[in-house]
Amino acid sequence: MMTDVVEQSGETAGTADGNPVARFGTEEPVAAARIAEIRERIDEIDRTLIQLWQERAELSQEVGATRMASGGTRLVLAREREILERFRQALGADGTQLALLLLRAGRGPL
Amino acid sequence: MMTDVVEQSGETAGTADGNPVARFGTEEPVAAARIAEIRERIDEIDRTLIQLWQERAELSQEVGATRMASGGTRLVLAREREILERFRQALGADGTQLALLLLRAGRGPL
Repeated sequence: MMTDVVEQSGETAGTADGNPVARFGTEEPVAAARIAEIRERIDEIDRTLIQLWQERAELSQEVGATRMASGGTRLVLAREREILERFRQALGADGTQLALLLLRAGRGPL
Repeated sequence: MMTDVVEQSGETAGTADGNPVARFGTEEPVAAARIAEIRERIDEIDRTLIQLWQERAELSQEVGATRMASGGTRLVLAREREILERFRQALGADGTQLALLLLRAGRGPL
């Protein structure tokens, strides 16, 4: 009997993180299942965020390069202010922080 | 002739920002047109980023609420470390900053 229990917990565990309390922070199976489900959508969102981040940085760097190649300025501060304001209005203080990161990534290596 | 020029530039201007140098940082029309085109895609990306940010924060707060309602912990630090690592690997130092903002937004009001 003891062997069965050990085998079962070995199966469930798989990895060290297989333990539901370690993975989901709860022992309650219905809650753990709901958390696993929501996490799948969060992981999907994170993959999209990463892709969009990379695409945006490339596009924004292309804007800067196009501008400078035509004898223009490196940055357009009015545009940066507009973007900051858009994120701040939608997401509050977090939006300002997010926009500052996005703008920095969009400027590319100096 | 002079009148035509003034009317045309009046039309182009529309608003105070209608001036292509102020708007696009270049006087060169082909570059300005390309920049306008890229900015449309950037604006679309930004709208999606904002939507995903809001959806993610709500889902993440739901995870925390589900866990606490089932007698579990408020946070699962191993999961947060995993997310930080995923963003860092994909986006470098900016990814770490972005993940820290996302995690904070996902914890919700304390």
